[in-house]
Amino acid sequence: MAADEAIQKLLHPRSIAVLGASDNPIKLSGRPVDLLKRFGYTGRVLPVNERRSEVQGLPAYRSLDDIDGDIDLAMVMLPAEHAVEGLRDCARRGIPAAIVAAAGFAETGERGAALQRRLEAAIAETGIRVLGPNCLGMISLRDRAMPTFTSAMDEDVELHEGPVAFVSQSGAFGTFIFSAAQRAGLGISHFLNTGNEADLSVAEILGGLVETEDVSVLMAYLEGVSGGDRLVEVARRAHELDKPILAVKVGRSEAGARAAASHTASLAGADAVFDGVAAQHGIIRLDGLEPLLDAAQLFAGGRRTRGRRITTLSLSGGAGVLMADVAAEHGLRVEPWDAEWQRRMAEVIPAFGSPRNPVDLTATLISEPDLLRRALAVATEHPGTDMIAVLLGNADKGSEQLIDAIEQAHRASDRPVVVVWTGGSGRPRQRLQELGIPCYTDPGRAAAAMGALADHSLRPPLSAPVRPADIDDRVARAVLTEVREQGRTQLDEHESTRLIAAYGVRCAGAFPAADPDAAVAAARELGGPVAVKLLSHRIAHKSDVGGVRLGLTEESEVRAATEDLLRIAGDARVLVQRMAGGGTELIAGIKRDPAFGPVVVVGLGGVLVEVLADSRAAIAPLDHAAAERLLRSLRGSRVFDGPRGEPARDLAAAADVVVRLSWLAADLADDVAELDVNPLLLGAEGAGAVAVDCLALLTEEGSRA
Amino acid sequence: MAADEAIQKLLHPRSIAVLGASDNPIKLSGRPVDLLKRFGYTGRVLPVNERRSEVQGLPAYRSLDDIDGDIDLAMVMLPAEHAVEGLRDCARRGIPAAIVAAAGFAETGERGAALQRRLEAAIAETGIRVLGPNCLGMISLRDRAMPTFTSAMDEDVELHEGPVAFVSQSGAFGTFIFSAAQRAGLGISHFLNTGNEADLSVAEILGGLVETEDVSVLMAYLEGVSGGDRLVEVARRAHELDKPILAVKVGRSEAGARAAASHTASLAGADAVFDGVAAQHGIIRLDGLEPLLDAAQLFAGGRRTRGRRITTLSLSGGAGVLMADVAAEHGLRVEPWDAEWQRRMAEVIPAFGSPRNPVDLTATLISEPDLLRRALAVATEHPGTDMIAVLLGNADKGSEQLIDAIEQAHRASDRPVVVVWTGGSGRPRQRLQELGIPCYTDPGRAAAAMGALADHSLRPPLSAPVRPADIDDRVARAVLTEVREQGRTQLDEHESTRLIAAYGVRCAGAFPAADPDAAVAAARELGGPVAVKLLSHRIAHKSDVGGVRLGLTEESEVRAATEDLLRIAGDARVLVQRMAGGGTELIAGIKRDPAFGPVVVVGLGGVLVEVLADSRAAIAPLDHAAAERLLRSLRGSRVFDGPRGEPARDLAAAADVVVRLSWLAADLADDVAELDVNPLLLGAEGAGAVAVDCLALLTEEGSRA
Repeated sequence: MAADEAIQKLLHPRSIAVLGASDNPIKLSGRPVDLLKRFGYTGRVLPVNERRSEVQGLPAYRSLDDIDGDIDLAMVMLPAEHAVEGLRDCARRGIPAAIVAAAGFAETGERGAALQRRLEAAIAETGIRVLGPNCLGMISLRDRAMPTFTSAMDEDVELHEGPVAFVSQSGAFGTFIFSAAQRAGLGISHFLNTGNEADLSVAEILGGLVETEDVSVLMAYLEGVSGGDRLVEVARRAHELDKPILAVKVGRSEAGARAAASHTASLAGADAVFDGVAAQHGIIRLDGLEPLLDAAQLFAGGRRTRGRRITTLSLSGGAGVLMADVAAEHGLRVEPWDAEWQRRMAEVIPAFGSPRNPVDLTATLISEPDLLRRALAVATEHPGTDMIAVLLGNADKGSEQLIDAIEQAHRASDRPVVVVWTGGSGRPRQRLQELGIPCYTDPGRAAAAMGALADHSLRPPLSAPVRPADIDDRVARAVLTEVREQGRTQLDEHESTRLIAAYGVRCAGAFPAADPDAAVAAARELGGPVAVKLLSHRIAHKSDVGGVRLGLTEESEVRAATEDLLRIAGDARVLVQRMAGGGTELIAGIKRDPAFGPVVVVGLGGVLVEVLADSRAAIAPLDHAAAERLLRSLRGSRVFDGPRGEPARDLAAAADVVVRLSWLAADLADDVAELDVNPLLLGAEGAGAVAVDCLALLTEEGSRA
Repeated sequence: MAADEAIQKLLHPRSIAVLGASDNPIKLSGRPVDLLKRFGYTGRVLPVNERRSEVQGLPAYRSLDDIDGDIDLAMVMLPAEHAVEGLRDCARRGIPAAIVAAAGFAETGERGAALQRRLEAAIAETGIRVLGPNCLGMISLRDRAMPTFTSAMDEDVELHEGPVAFVSQSGAFGTFIFSAAQRAGLGISHFLNTGNEADLSVAEILGGLVETEDVSVLMAYLEGVSGGDRLVEVARRAHELDKPILAVKVGRSEAGARAAASHTASLAGADAVFDGVAAQHGIIRLDGLEPLLDAAQLFAGGRRTRGRRITTLSLSGGAGVLMADVAAEHGLRVEPWDAEWQRRMAEVIPAFGSPRNPVDLTATLISEPDLLRRALAVATEHPGTDMIAVLLGNADKGSEQLIDAIEQAHRASDRPVVVVWTGGSGRPRQRLQELGIPCYTDPGRAAAAMGALADHSLRPPLSAPVRPADIDDRVARAVLTEVREQGRTQLDEHESTRLIAAYGVRCAGAFPAADPDAAVAAARELGGPVAVKLLSHRIAHKSDVGGVRLGLTEESEVRAATEDLLRIAGDARVLVQRMAGGGTELIAGIKRDPAFGPVVVVGLGGVLVEVLADSRAAIAPLDHAAAERLLRSLRGSRVFDGPRGEPARDLAAAADVVVRLSWLAADLADDVAELDVNPLLLGAEGAGAVAVDCLALLTEEGSRA
């Protein structure tokens, strides 16, 4: 059975065998059968218990072999030390997928880790696909399939089925989020907890869910990313299908990352790389539980926006102003309507209200709820309105008419309509949510959700990197071979520069020279002022040892500088380089991320790098448009517009360098561990970009080629 | 009666006359009497109605003169056109304070504005203190005094009295916040709406409330600030009494509308000034309704923290990791405990939990709630714990024992204890809040509140500016007199420099010169490379007209440059200035804020000012410590630590310049409209700061002195 098919069986099982099912519904091993019965699972429940012919009123089986027909999924409720054996039984019986619930694996030290290695071996040998171990299992509201032992289902919750699927690496916190989502009226199709991810990762589960009809929103809670490639693949597929992935990933702060490492067996990847990957592939990253559910509520409605302009109708002028403030923080705009439309709005609202936008309907709305219907009718016709926000509060008594008006407008328009209903009993909010109209308690939370919706709706097309035709990777590979043959991994500046030059990155003209005479000859050849830099395989950071002399114009200066520098290191040569002209300093580089492989990193250079610590990462390779977006996403990106009075910088040239470095990173991923261009000098538009210094480090292992 | 006394009568009235009280409790003019009766006002209710002897079952009076005894407060429910007359009646009767409810004043155009001017004249003439007009009035939960007609009291809300007072400029949005606060279980003492503020501002009401016993937290909702001085005064008093002011002020996104002549002035719009004032005086600014109430909940408990270290105990490892992330965003730290204390924690929690901090109690907590009591006992003893956060969820069934454990720990310790209880029914949250233990639905919201508490608890002492003894304001005043006599408001660079030099700011050495010979002589006198700059009263931005020549070393260069520049403007001279050495470029300036008067503004200069648009403002004058904090609060403040390898910058010297400029701003507030030092070059520690360029603009009106 294909891997994807097995995941589909896990997600939509028509039959579930429960290994080690207890007759006692209170015991952990008795809970899955109890829950499957209690919530009315639509498929076959098959308890397996060596010692019983009946479990919780259902016929039970002594072994899997006693069961007739196909079994889609096994819920292995055996203790850790018996789970591997149980899993092998499942595979033998032809069951495509299993959930291993038990704790006591890699999360608990060396003995558990050994057990997990045995489990992984069984998975690899048999091909069965496994969720877990150390996981709560699954809750599928669609099929009422609850192969889980979570106590989250003990509370008297009314279950809301819907288009939102949720996958969590954490069990307990996953159930917190699941429960809060249900409480917020969010319709859920699936909740899965991946635990130790001995086999199936969050990305793989998302890959199964994204193909599930009726699932239109994917939520993920991550503590670390293992299968980076798979996550990117799923993100691209989700992009195509217009199914947003909303992710909370913890470990943003150092303290957070440390706690993540100690909490699960998974390692927190570099958080900045995840940020870059999310931006690059349209994964919507959110900062916490409520922001996640707030966004999901809006996305679950299925509407998209064609722009960032919000029209705000409010009972209170103050609420409208606050909305305009917070909207701006999320890249949205509350702009005054033009005179003609203001006139039309003015016709239907009180004279002491405001028809500008934010539209102030005034507290008259409380005694005259029909006012909202009239104002909404104008707003839904207004061509400059991309989204509508209605701000209410404390109007429980007149709420029916208000809700009717909102529902009418919602139906009459295909644009997103959200409500902020502060205070009051909460009943109107609930009613609106039942009608599929997102409703929030705070303007800030509504604006954050609408900002995420706009980002998603207006997301750029998928990157389609095309290798620049002029790249000559043979030269680059020749440099690598030469360095490898000398048993080195550290390239000097000259070698590093040849590497990027082979990929079409323009570098400042330079010649290596072994003695003062050669240096002087080189300087003459280059013409104009030069820099003389120490060139040694053993000294990576030449500035730190005083190995750089700048702006030398006289031959005597070049000679003296060369003599000086050659005294620093015995094996050394110098590099004589044409002094680069002015320009904005950038840094651009390559690194390998443990989860996502080769990535490019860009940042502002010079004093800005110290002050802002501002950098962005993206997976290599990337196309020109993505490279421009990456540079534009820097916090200090206004440098590209040119300082006051000066012309704009050559952003296209910088993006071209990033594209070329990204291909270098992708092509030579096995060989190049790190590469740094610092500075990359960016001139005015049309003047291009020049790499002034470059340093590369190879991997220890090298390519297998 | 003293003004403060009248405000106290308004806030704590023992008798309330209602002018124009209707017998019909449904009508707006009938609502105040209805509400006063319904909520059991503890003082005398005195309906005044020309045509009735009884109103809603209470004896009514034909006129104020028919009432015996003192009247503390009048609620004027007369329509706008009769309100002024009514107010004069109140003043005649000796009533110290009144609420004018009617709309139809300055908020409605010219006719209303004229009416408001009449109202203001009546206030000025009689000395009566007035809340409103166009306001909802007041709700005092302490005295059950409800001189208001708001419909917010129609809902079946259970009123929670407590230590939080709330003043709002907005009526409707104010009631939204009041209602949400009540719904969140926040104990409120007063809610007042100031409306058009014809007399009493939010600041003045806060000034009355801050002196009210049992009020320990002040909340404000502001749309604009009128009485800036009074707000600062109240903030200082609140600081002394350790009563935090929590403020939401809208208008953050408002684009700086006023065209400012100098760069510095354009850097800090009205909202940025408010931000600076808040930071300077310990006003805690929050971004929305829920953040406001979240913080108030924590402050209302009355506890303060002695540090920023949080110990987190959680049912879910994931929740702990998320908490560590969000804590870092709010300046808090979740740090691993030392080995000894980890050992003590490990003794009481499951082996597969984590004793590091965040402490993971694991889902075992659900079946064994006593675990929390044991873990909390260790945490409350741990000396490195400043605050405790307990993270729970979905545990409604075992909630009683958990709540008991938390309450015990809360009582056993004087440190802040907060709970995050996600999901579930909400009943445990409510119970905890009743016990005075802040409880949140999201780790992010708890962290934001704790961050605000830490900022307040650890706030710096009040600034006590002392004028530097070497300031010679006579020189400065002489410069001003000279410029005024010429009928100018624009100072040239030389005049501007003399102004700040008189205040002890070190400036780059310079001489004005009227012709090339004088320029050459000046250059010779200065020695070394010089700059030659155009000096014209008519050209403020000399760079824009090519009026600056830098780095001239030869006399011929100086001569040629001078000839060139003098051709640009007929009336001009040049300034020959010694080229300043290197350094970090700052900008520092002065502007006058309409609400807060003279302020100083600082920012990073050079490329950073363009890229970051990073500036901070503070009210002048300020002391050295406050000036250092102001500079440190810049986002790019890492420049002060020196770029990699370079020594730290002379922050003390920069702060000294800021202090001196702040005194200039304060002393010459009536004369100096704007002043810009750009750049201020900051050297390494001990090397000081040098003003390289300066430009001042005088007010049109000038000082009355």
